[in-house]
Amino acid sequence: MSDSQSVTACVLIIGNEVLSGRTRDANLPFIAQGLNDMGVRLREARIIPDDAAVIVDAVNACRTAFDYVITTGGIGPTHDDITSACVARAFGVALVRDPDAEARLRRQYRADDLNEARLKMADVPEGATLVDNPVSGAPGYRMGNVFVLAGVPAIMRAMFDGLRGQLRGGAPVRSRTVSAFTTEGAVAKPLADVQDRFPATEIGSYPFVRDGRFGVSLVIRSTDGESLHAAADAVSALVRAAGAEPIVEDESP
Amino acid sequence: MSDSQSVTACVLIIGNEVLSGRTRDANLPFIAQGLNDMGVRLREARIIPDDAAVIVDAVNACRTAFDYVITTGGIGPTHDDITSACVARAFGVALVRDPDAEARLRRQYRADDLNEARLKMADVPEGATLVDNPVSGAPGYRMGNVFVLAGVPAIMRAMFDGLRGQLRGGAPVRSRTVSAFTTEGAVAKPLADVQDRFPATEIGSYPFVRDGRFGVSLVIRSTDGESLHAAADAVSALVRAAGAEPIVEDESP
Repeated sequence: MSDSQSVTACVLIIGNEVLSGRTRDANLPFIAQGLNDMGVRLREARIIPDDAAVIVDAVNACRTAFDYVITTGGIGPTHDDITSACVARAFGVALVRDPDAEARLRRQYRADDLNEARLKMADVPEGATLVDNPVSGAPGYRMGNVFVLAGVPAIMRAMFDGLRGQLRGGAPVRSRTVSAFTTEGAVAKPLADVQDRFPATEIGSYPFVRDGRFGVSLVIRSTDGESLHAAADAVSALVRAAGAEPIVEDESP
Repeated sequence: MSDSQSVTACVLIIGNEVLSGRTRDANLPFIAQGLNDMGVRLREARIIPDDAAVIVDAVNACRTAFDYVITTGGIGPTHDDITSACVARAFGVALVRDPDAEARLRRQYRADDLNEARLKMADVPEGATLVDNPVSGAPGYRMGNVFVLAGVPAIMRAMFDGLRGQLRGGAPVRSRTVSAFTTEGAVAKPLADVQDRFPATEIGSYPFVRDGRFGVSLVIRSTDGESLHAAADAVSALVRAAGAEPIVEDESP
Protein backbone atom coordinates (compact mmCIF):
# COMPACT_ATOMS: atom_id res chain seq x y z
CA MET A 1 0.00 0.00 0.00
CA SER A 2 1.61 3.25 -1.09
CA ASP A 3 2.38 5.52 1.82
CA SER A 4 3.60 8.65 0.06
CA GLN A 5 0.34 10.50 0.62
CA SER A 6 -0.42 9.06 4.00
CA VAL A 7 -0.80 11.01 7.21
CA THR A 8 0.65 9.18 10.19
CA ALA A 9 0.13 9.17 13.92
CA CYS A 10 1.60 7.65 17.05
CA VAL A 11 -0.17 7.15 20.38
CA LEU A 12 1.71 7.44 23.68
CA ILE A 13 -0.12 5.76 26.55
CA ILE A 14 1.43 7.15 29.71
CA GLY A 15 1.01 5.30 32.98
CA ASN A 16 2.61 2.74 35.26
CA GLU A 17 -0.74 1.05 35.82
CA VAL A 18 -0.91 -0.40 32.32
CA LEU A 19 2.67 -1.70 32.49
CA SER A 20 2.15 -3.30 35.90
CA GLY A 21 -0.80 -5.27 34.55
CA ARG A 22 -3.17 -3.61 37.00
CA THR A 23 -5.16 -1.76 34.36
CA ARG A 24 -6.08 -2.87 30.87
CA ASP A 25 -5.81 -0.02 28.41
CA ALA A 26 -9.19 0.75 26.90
CA ASN A 27 -8.19 3.80 24.89
CA LEU A 28 -6.11 2.47 22.05
CA PRO A 29 -8.84 0.62 20.11
CA PHE A 30 -11.04 3.73 20.24
CA ILE A 31 -8.27 6.04 19.04
CA ALA A 32 -7.12 3.56 16.41
CA GLN A 33 -10.59 3.36 14.90
CA GLY A 34 -11.16 7.09 15.18
CA LEU A 35 -7.91 7.86 13.37
CA ASN A 36 -8.70 5.28 10.73
CA ASP A 37 -12.09 6.93 10.14
CA MET A 38 -10.27 10.25 9.58
CA GLY A 39 -7.80 8.75 7.11
CA VAL A 40 -4.91 9.01 9.57
CA ARG A 41 -2.69 5.91 9.81
CA LEU A 42 -1.79 4.88 13.31
CA ARG A 43 1.76 3.65 12.82
CA GLU A 44 2.86 3.02 16.36
CA ALA A 45 1.66 3.01 19.95
CA ARG A 46 3.95 3.09 22.95
CA ILE A 47 2.99 2.38 26.51
CA ILE A 48 5.46 4.14 28.77
CA PRO A 49 5.81 4.65 32.53
CA ASP A 50 5.37 7.81 34.60
CA ASP A 51 9.07 8.53 34.23
CA ALA A 52 10.03 12.04 33.15
CA ALA A 53 13.10 11.15 31.08
CA VAL A 54 11.24 8.40 29.25
CA ILE A 55 8.24 10.62 28.50
CA VAL A 56 10.37 13.51 27.24
CA ASP A 57 12.39 11.23 24.97
CA ALA A 58 9.30 9.48 23.61
CA VAL A 59 7.49 12.76 22.89
CA ASN A 60 10.49 14.10 21.02
CA ALA A 61 11.18 10.90 19.10
CA CYS A 62 7.56 10.53 18.05
CA ARG A 63 6.72 14.14 17.21
CA THR A 64 9.52 14.18 14.65
CA ALA A 65 8.78 10.72 13.25
CA PHE A 66 4.99 11.08 12.81
CA ASP A 67 2.57 13.75 11.62
CA TYR A 68 0.57 13.58 14.85
CA VAL A 69 1.18 12.33 18.36
CA ILE A 70 -1.68 11.66 20.75
CA THR A 71 -0.89 11.13 24.42
CA THR A 72 -3.25 9.73 27.03
CA GLY A 73 -2.83 9.90 30.77
CA GLY A 74 -0.91 11.85 33.36
CA ILE A 75 -2.76 15.18 33.30
CA GLY A 76 -4.66 14.92 36.59
CA PRO A 77 -3.98 16.66 39.92
CA THR A 78 -1.75 14.12 41.68
CA HIS A 79 2.03 13.90 42.03
CA ASP A 80 2.28 11.13 39.44
CA ASP A 81 0.64 13.32 36.78
CA ILE A 82 3.74 14.63 35.06
CA THR A 83 2.77 14.60 31.39
CA SER A 84 2.40 18.38 31.00
CA ALA A 85 5.74 19.16 32.63
CA CYS A 86 7.34 16.59 30.34
CA VAL A 87 5.71 17.91 27.17
CA ALA A 88 6.90 21.42 28.09
CA ARG A 89 10.44 20.06 28.56
CA ALA A 90 10.25 18.17 25.29
CA PHE A 91 9.35 21.41 23.47
CA GLY A 92 11.84 23.47 25.48
CA VAL A 93 9.18 25.87 26.75
CA ALA A 94 7.90 26.87 30.16
CA LEU A 95 4.92 25.28 31.88
CA VAL A 96 2.49 28.15 32.42
CA ARG A 97 -0.91 28.55 34.02
CA ASP A 98 -3.45 29.08 31.24
CA PRO A 99 -6.08 31.71 32.18
CA ASP A 100 -8.79 30.07 30.09
CA ALA A 101 -8.05 26.65 31.60
CA GLU A 102 -8.13 28.18 35.07
CA ALA A 103 -11.49 29.82 34.30
CA ARG A 104 -12.85 26.44 33.23
CA LEU A 105 -11.73 24.91 36.52
CA ARG A 106 -13.34 27.79 38.43
CA ARG A 107 -16.62 26.99 36.71
CA GLN A 108 -16.22 23.29 37.52
CA TYR A 109 -15.28 23.50 41.19
CA ARG A 110 -16.57 25.46 44.16
CA ALA A 111 -13.99 27.97 45.39
CA ASP A 112 -13.34 25.87 48.52
CA ASP A 113 -12.55 22.80 46.45
CA LEU A 114 -10.25 24.43 43.92
CA ASN A 115 -7.00 23.73 45.74
CA GLU A 116 -3.49 24.07 44.32
CA ALA A 117 -3.43 20.41 43.22
CA ARG A 118 -6.53 20.93 41.06
CA LEU A 119 -5.20 24.25 39.74
CA LYS A 120 -2.18 22.30 38.45
CA MET A 121 -4.58 20.98 35.79
CA ALA A 122 -4.57 24.52 34.30
CA ASP A 123 -0.80 24.38 33.70
CA VAL A 124 0.11 23.79 30.07
CA PRO A 125 3.24 24.21 27.96
CA GLU A 126 3.59 27.81 26.77
CA GLY A 127 1.94 28.15 23.36
CA ALA A 128 -0.52 25.26 23.78
CA THR A 129 -4.14 25.57 22.67
CA LEU A 130 -6.81 23.94 24.81
CA VAL A 131 -8.85 20.86 23.94
CA ASP A 132 -12.34 20.85 25.47
CA ASN A 133 -13.26 18.44 28.25
CA PRO A 134 -17.07 18.38 28.35
CA VAL A 135 -17.01 15.67 31.04
CA SER A 136 -15.05 17.14 33.92
CA GLY A 137 -13.80 20.57 32.89
CA ALA A 138 -10.02 20.25 33.11
CA PRO A 139 -8.93 20.58 29.49
CA GLY A 140 -6.46 18.71 27.33
CA TYR A 141 -4.40 20.67 24.84
CA ARG A 142 -2.57 20.72 21.58
CA MET A 143 1.12 21.65 21.49
CA GLY A 144 2.49 21.68 17.97
CA ASN A 145 1.57 18.30 16.50
CA VAL A 146 1.10 16.72 19.94
CA PHE A 147 -2.40 16.29 21.38
CA VAL A 148 -2.42 15.73 25.13
CA LEU A 149 -5.55 13.95 26.34
CA ALA A 150 -6.80 12.47 29.60
CA GLY A 151 -6.37 8.79 30.45
CA VAL A 152 -9.84 8.18 31.91
CA PRO A 153 -11.66 6.59 28.94
CA ALA A 154 -14.88 8.62 29.14
CA ILE A 155 -12.94 11.88 29.24
CA MET A 156 -10.44 10.81 26.59
CA ARG A 157 -13.28 9.90 24.23
CA ALA A 158 -15.03 13.22 24.69
CA MET A 159 -11.77 15.07 24.08
CA PHE A 160 -10.95 12.98 21.03
CA ASP A 161 -14.39 13.52 19.54
CA GLY A 162 -13.76 17.26 19.81
CA LEU A 163 -10.58 16.93 17.76
CA ARG A 164 -12.23 15.54 14.70
CA GLY A 165 -12.02 18.83 12.82
CA GLN A 166 -8.41 19.46 13.78
CA LEU A 167 -6.73 16.35 12.38
CA ARG A 168 -6.17 16.47 8.65
CA GLY A 169 -6.31 13.00 7.22
CA GLY A 170 -5.07 11.54 3.96
CA ALA A 171 -7.05 9.27 1.69
CA PRO A 172 -9.20 7.03 3.89
CA VAL A 173 -8.22 3.38 4.09
CA ARG A 174 -11.07 1.03 3.26
CA SER A 175 -11.10 -2.64 4.06
CA ARG A 176 -12.79 -5.91 3.21
CA THR A 177 -12.55 -9.05 5.27
CA VAL A 178 -12.86 -12.50 3.74
CA SER A 179 -13.12 -15.21 6.39
CA ALA A 180 -13.19 -18.95 5.95
CA PHE A 181 -12.95 -22.16 7.93
CA THR A 182 -9.54 -23.08 6.58
CA THR A 183 -6.01 -22.60 7.89
CA GLU A 184 -3.34 -20.03 7.22
CA GLY A 185 -0.97 -22.71 6.01
CA ALA A 186 -3.45 -23.88 3.38
CA VAL A 187 -3.84 -20.44 1.79
CA ALA A 188 -0.45 -18.86 2.46
CA LYS A 189 1.09 -19.39 -0.97
CA PRO A 190 -1.82 -18.17 -3.15
CA LEU A 191 -2.41 -15.33 -0.69
CA ALA A 192 1.18 -14.12 -1.11
CA ASP A 193 0.60 -14.24 -4.86
CA VAL A 194 -2.49 -12.04 -4.55
CA GLN A 195 -0.55 -9.60 -2.38
CA ASP A 196 2.13 -9.45 -5.10
CA ARG A 197 -0.48 -8.87 -7.82
CA PHE A 198 -2.13 -6.02 -5.89
CA PRO A 199 0.64 -3.85 -4.45
CA ALA A 200 -1.81 -1.01 -3.78
CA THR A 201 -3.40 -3.21 -1.12
CA GLU A 202 -2.16 -4.50 2.19
CA ILE A 203 -3.37 -8.01 2.96
CA GLY A 204 -3.26 -9.41 6.47
CA SER A 205 -4.02 -12.92 7.67
CA TYR A 206 -5.47 -13.54 11.13
CA PRO A 207 -6.28 -17.01 12.44
CA PHE A 208 -9.25 -17.50 14.75
CA VAL A 209 -11.15 -20.20 16.60
CA ARG A 210 -14.96 -20.01 16.47
CA ASP A 211 -17.31 -22.62 17.88
CA GLY A 212 -14.33 -24.91 18.21
CA ARG A 213 -13.44 -24.64 14.51
CA PHE A 214 -10.25 -23.10 13.19
CA GLY A 215 -10.57 -20.36 10.65
CA VAL A 216 -8.73 -17.45 9.17
CA SER A 217 -9.73 -13.87 8.41
CA LEU A 218 -8.03 -12.35 5.40
CA VAL A 219 -8.20 -8.58 5.59
CA ILE A 220 -7.61 -6.46 2.51
CA ARG A 221 -6.96 -2.74 3.07
CA SER A 222 -6.41 -0.03 0.52
CA THR A 223 -7.04 3.59 -0.28
CA ASP A 224 -7.86 2.53 -3.84
CA GLY A 225 -11.37 1.15 -4.22
CA GLU A 226 -10.74 -0.64 -7.49
CA SER A 227 -7.70 -2.50 -6.18
CA LEU A 228 -9.55 -3.27 -2.97
CA HIS A 229 -12.43 -4.97 -4.72
CA ALA A 230 -10.31 -6.80 -7.27
CA ALA A 231 -7.99 -8.12 -4.55
CA ALA A 232 -10.95 -9.14 -2.37
CA ASP A 233 -12.45 -11.06 -5.29
CA ALA A 234 -9.09 -12.77 -5.87
CA VAL A 235 -8.92 -13.69 -2.18
CA SER A 236 -12.44 -15.14 -2.29
CA ALA A 237 -11.42 -17.18 -5.31
CA LEU A 238 -8.31 -18.59 -3.64
CA VAL A 239 -10.34 -19.55 -0.59
CA ARG A 240 -12.74 -21.47 -2.84
CA ALA A 241 -9.77 -23.10 -4.59
CA ALA A 242 -8.60 -24.28 -1.15
CA GLY A 243 -11.96 -26.03 -0.72
CA ALA A 244 -13.53 -23.57 1.71
CA GLU A 245 -16.44 -21.15 1.49
CA PRO A 246 -15.49 -17.44 1.65
CA ILE A 247 -17.53 -15.33 4.07
CA VAL A 248 -17.33 -11.61 3.36
CA GLU A 249 -17.81 -10.27 6.86
CA ASP A 250 -17.59 -6.55 6.76
CA GLU A 251 -16.85 -3.71 4.50
CA SER A 252 -15.82 -0.31 5.72
CA PRO A 253 -17.23 2.63 3.75
CA MET B 1 11.27 3.10 44.05
CA SER B 2 14.95 2.27 43.62
CA ASP B 3 15.68 0.67 40.28
CA SER B 4 19.36 -0.21 40.68
CA GLN B 5 18.61 -3.89 41.29
CA SER B 6 15.67 -4.16 38.96
CA VAL B 7 15.42 -6.41 35.95
CA THR B 8 13.60 -4.73 33.06
CA ALA B 9 11.63 -5.87 30.05
CA CYS B 10 9.95 -4.42 26.97
CA VAL B 11 7.15 -6.00 24.95
CA LEU B 12 6.91 -5.55 21.19
CA ILE B 13 3.44 -6.28 19.84
CA ILE B 14 3.85 -6.78 16.12
CA GLY B 15 0.86 -6.50 13.84
CA ASN B 16 -1.09 -4.09 11.66
CA GLU B 17 -4.37 -5.44 13.01
CA VAL B 18 -3.92 -3.85 16.43
CA LEU B 19 -2.96 -0.48 14.94
CA SER B 20 -5.89 -0.46 12.52
CA GLY B 21 -8.29 -0.95 15.43
CA ARG B 22 -9.53 -4.24 13.99
CA THR B 23 -8.13 -6.35 16.82
CA ARG B 24 -7.86 -5.54 20.49
CA ASP B 25 -4.59 -6.77 21.94
CA ALA B 26 -5.24 -9.39 24.61
CA ASN B 27 -1.64 -10.34 25.29
CA LEU B 28 -0.16 -7.37 27.10
CA PRO B 29 -2.09 -7.68 30.39
CA PHE B 30 -1.17 -11.37 30.62
CA ILE B 31 2.52 -10.72 29.97
CA ALA B 32 2.57 -7.68 32.25
CA GLN B 33 1.20 -9.69 35.16
CA GLY B 34 3.40 -12.67 34.41
CA LEU B 35 6.53 -10.54 34.38
CA ASN B 36 5.46 -8.80 37.55
CA ASP B 37 5.04 -12.20 39.25
CA MET B 38 8.63 -13.05 38.25
CA GLY B 39 10.03 -9.80 39.60
CA VAL B 40 10.69 -8.42 36.12
CA ARG B 41 9.61 -4.81 35.55
CA LEU B 42 7.82 -4.18 32.30
CA ARG B 43 9.11 -0.72 31.41
CA GLU B 44 7.69 -0.25 27.94
CA ALA B 45 5.43 -1.83 25.36
CA ARG B 46 5.40 -0.87 21.71
CA ILE B 47 2.78 -1.79 19.18
CA ILE B 48 4.37 -1.70 15.74
CA PRO B 49 3.25 -2.57 12.21
CA ASP B 50 4.31 -5.44 9.96
CA ASP B 51 7.02 -3.23 8.48
CA ALA B 52 10.51 -4.72 8.30
CA ALA B 53 12.49 -1.53 8.91
CA VAL B 54 10.34 -0.60 11.89
CA ILE B 55 10.59 -4.08 13.43
CA VAL B 56 14.38 -4.28 13.00
CA ASP B 57 14.89 -0.84 14.54
CA ALA B 58 12.57 -1.56 17.45
CA VAL B 59 14.20 -4.91 18.22
CA ASN B 60 17.64 -3.32 18.24
CA ALA B 61 16.61 -0.28 20.27
CA CYS B 62 14.83 -2.38 22.86
CA ARG B 63 17.29 -5.24 23.25
CA THR B 64 20.00 -2.77 24.21
CA ALA B 65 17.77 -0.65 26.47
CA PHE B 66 16.16 -3.49 28.45
CA ASP B 67 17.24 -6.77 30.04
CA TYR B 68 14.57 -8.73 28.15
CA VAL B 69 12.45 -8.17 25.07
CA ILE B 70 9.34 -10.21 24.38
CA THR B 71 7.77 -10.03 20.95
CA THR B 72 4.31 -11.29 20.01
CA GLY B 73 2.99 -11.87 16.53
CA GLY B 74 4.26 -12.37 13.01
CA ILE B 75 5.63 -15.91 13.23
CA GLY B 76 2.93 -17.75 11.26
CA PRO B 77 3.06 -19.12 7.71
CA THR B 78 1.70 -16.19 5.69
CA HIS B 79 3.47 -13.43 3.74
CA ASP B 80 2.79 -10.86 6.46
CA ASP B 81 4.62 -12.96 9.05
CA ILE B 82 8.03 -11.30 8.90
CA THR B 83 9.12 -11.21 12.54
CA SER B 84 11.75 -13.97 12.28
CA ALA B 85 13.39 -12.46 9.21
CA CYS B 86 13.50 -9.12 11.01
CA VAL B 87 14.96 -10.53 14.23
CA ALA B 88 17.68 -12.25 12.18
CA ARG B 89 18.44 -8.93 10.48
CA ALA B 90 18.48 -7.12 13.79
CA PHE B 91 21.09 -9.56 15.12
CA GLY B 92 23.02 -9.61 11.84
CA VAL B 93 22.67 -13.37 11.42
CA ALA B 94 21.15 -15.65 8.81
CA LEU B 95 17.62 -17.03 8.96
CA VAL B 96 18.09 -20.81 9.00
CA ARG B 97 15.78 -23.82 9.04
CA ASP B 98 16.02 -25.39 12.48
CA PRO B 99 16.01 -29.21 12.29
CA ASP B 100 14.30 -29.62 15.66
CA ALA B 101 11.61 -27.08 14.72
CA GLU B 102 11.09 -28.87 11.41
CA ALA B 103 10.76 -32.20 13.25
CA ARG B 104 8.09 -30.66 15.47
CA LEU B 105 6.16 -29.50 12.40
CA ARG B 106 6.46 -32.97 10.86
CA ARG B 107 4.86 -34.42 13.97
CA GLN B 108 2.11 -31.78 13.86
CA TYR B 109 1.14 -32.00 10.18
CA ARG B 110 0.48 -34.83 7.76
CA ALA B 111 3.15 -34.94 5.05
CA ASP B 112 0.61 -33.70 2.44
CA ASP B 113 -0.22 -30.66 4.54
CA LEU B 114 3.33 -29.64 5.39
CA ASN B 115 3.81 -27.21 2.51
CA GLU B 116 6.59 -24.67 2.11
CA ALA B 117 4.53 -21.95 3.79
CA ARG B 118 4.17 -24.03 6.93
CA LEU B 119 7.82 -25.08 6.85
CA LYS B 120 8.68 -21.38 7.02
CA MET B 121 7.64 -21.64 10.66
CA ALA B 122 10.80 -23.72 11.26
CA ASP B 123 13.04 -20.83 10.12
CA VAL B 124 14.75 -19.05 13.00
CA PRO B 125 17.72 -16.70 13.37
CA GLU B 126 20.98 -18.65 13.51
CA GLY B 127 21.82 -19.35 17.15
CA ALA B 128 18.26 -19.22 18.46
CA THR B 129 16.99 -21.76 20.98
CA LEU B 130 13.40 -22.98 20.63
CA VAL B 131 10.50 -22.17 22.92
CA ASP B 132 7.89 -24.93 23.15
CA ASN B 133 4.44 -24.53 21.62
CA PRO B 134 2.26 -27.19 23.24
CA VAL B 135 -0.83 -25.87 21.42
CA SER B 136 0.00 -26.05 17.74
CA GLY B 137 3.57 -27.31 17.39
CA ALA B 138 5.31 -24.44 15.58
CA PRO B 139 7.77 -23.16 18.19
CA GLY B 140 8.78 -19.72 19.33
CA TYR B 141 12.40 -19.09 20.20
CA ARG B 142 14.89 -17.14 22.21
CA MET B 143 17.61 -15.16 20.47
CA GLY B 144 19.95 -13.50 22.91
CA ASN B 145 17.73 -11.55 25.29
CA VAL B 146 14.81 -11.51 22.84
CA PHE B 147 11.94 -13.98 23.22
CA VAL B 148 9.86 -14.38 20.07
CA LEU B 149 6.34 -15.64 20.78
CA ALA B 150 3.14 -16.20 18.79
CA GLY B 151 0.41 -13.57 18.61
CA VAL B 152 -2.59 -15.89 19.01
CA PRO B 153 -3.37 -15.52 22.73
CA ALA B 154 -3.81 -19.21 23.58
CA ILE B 155 -0.47 -20.05 21.95
CA MET B 156 1.32 -17.01 23.37
CA ARG B 157 0.19 -17.95 26.88
CA ALA B 158 1.36 -21.52 26.59
CA MET B 159 4.73 -20.34 25.28
CA PHE B 160 5.07 -17.73 28.00
CA ASP B 161 4.24 -20.22 30.74
CA GLY B 162 7.09 -22.37 29.46
CA LEU B 163 9.52 -19.48 29.89
CA ARG B 164 9.02 -19.06 33.58
CA GLY B 165 12.29 -20.77 34.47
CA GLN B 166 14.28 -18.83 31.87
CA LEU B 167 13.64 -15.27 32.99
CA ARG B 168 15.69 -14.18 35.97
CA GLY B 169 13.77 -11.62 38.00
CA GLY B 170 14.89 -9.12 40.58
CA ALA B 171 13.19 -8.48 43.89
CA PRO B 172 9.46 -8.97 43.41
CA VAL B 173 7.32 -5.84 43.53
CA ARG B 174 4.46 -6.08 46.01
CA SER B 175 1.48 -3.78 46.06
CA ARG B 176 -1.37 -2.59 48.20
CA THR B 177 -4.38 -0.71 46.93
CA VAL B 178 -6.30 1.74 49.09
CA SER B 179 -9.54 2.84 47.45
CA ALA B 180 -12.02 5.42 48.64
CA PHE B 181 -15.03 7.36 47.44
CA THR B 182 -13.22 10.66 47.28
CA THR B 183 -11.52 12.57 44.48
CA GLU B 184 -7.93 12.85 43.35
CA GLY B 185 -7.99 16.60 43.90
CA ALA B 186 -9.01 16.18 47.54
CA VAL B 187 -6.08 13.91 48.40
CA ALA B 188 -3.39 15.08 45.98
CA LYS B 189 -1.36 17.24 48.39
CA PRO B 190 -1.15 14.78 51.35
CA LEU B 191 -0.57 11.95 48.88
CA ALA B 192 2.45 13.75 47.41
CA ASP B 193 3.73 14.20 50.96
CA VAL B 194 3.42 10.45 51.63
CA GLN B 195 5.25 9.73 48.38
CA ASP B 196 8.05 12.06 49.53
CA ARG B 197 8.24 10.38 52.93
CA PHE B 198 8.50 6.88 51.42
CA PRO B 199 10.91 7.08 48.48
CA ALA B 200 11.23 3.28 48.41
CA THR B 201 7.62 3.11 47.25
CA GLU B 202 5.92 4.17 44.06
CA ILE B 203 2.44 5.55 44.65
CA GLY B 204 -0.04 5.85 41.81
CA SER B 205 -3.48 7.45 41.81
CA TYR B 206 -6.26 6.14 39.57
CA PRO B 207 -9.74 7.65 39.49
CA PHE B 208 -12.75 5.39 38.90
CA VAL B 209 -16.52 5.50 38.69
CA ARG B 210 -18.41 2.72 40.47
CA ASP B 211 -22.19 2.52 40.82
CA GLY B 212 -22.33 6.12 39.67
CA ARG B 213 -20.00 7.33 42.43
CA PHE B 214 -16.56 8.81 41.86
CA GLY B 215 -13.67 7.27 43.67
CA VAL B 216 -9.93 6.89 43.53
CA SER B 217 -7.63 3.92 43.91
CA LEU B 218 -4.27 4.70 45.47
CA VAL B 219 -1.78 1.98 44.62
CA ILE B 220 1.42 1.61 46.61
CA ARG B 221 4.13 -0.58 45.09
CA SER B 222 7.49 -1.52 46.53
CA THR B 223 10.07 -4.26 46.78
CA ASP B 224 10.45 -3.38 50.46
CA GLY B 225 7.71 -4.84 52.65
CA GLU B 226 8.25 -2.52 55.57
CA SER B 227 8.01 0.63 53.43
CA LEU B 228 5.01 -0.82 51.63
CA HIS B 229 3.01 -1.34 54.78
CA ALA B 230 4.04 1.91 56.42
CA ALA B 231 3.17 3.88 53.28
CA ALA B 232 -0.14 2.06 52.90
CA ASP B 233 -1.03 2.90 56.50
CA ALA B 234 -0.14 6.53 55.86
CA VAL B 235 -2.33 6.53 52.75
CA SER B 236 -5.24 5.05 54.71
CA ALA B 237 -4.76 7.78 57.31
CA LEU B 238 -4.81 10.58 54.75
CA VAL B 239 -7.97 9.17 53.20
CA ARG B 240 -9.65 9.25 56.62
CA ALA B 241 -8.39 12.80 57.16
CA ALA B 242 -10.10 13.72 53.87
CA GLY B 243 -13.37 12.45 55.36
CA ALA B 244 -13.57 9.17 53.41
CA GLU B 245 -13.36 5.53 54.43
CA PRO B 246 -10.30 3.66 53.11
CA ILE B 247 -11.01 0.29 51.48
CA VAL B 248 -7.94 -1.94 51.27
CA GLU B 249 -8.86 -3.90 48.19
CA ASP B 250 -6.07 -6.27 47.45
CA GLU B 251 -2.61 -7.17 48.50
CA SER B 252 -0.21 -9.01 46.28
CA PRO B 253 1.99 -11.58 48.08
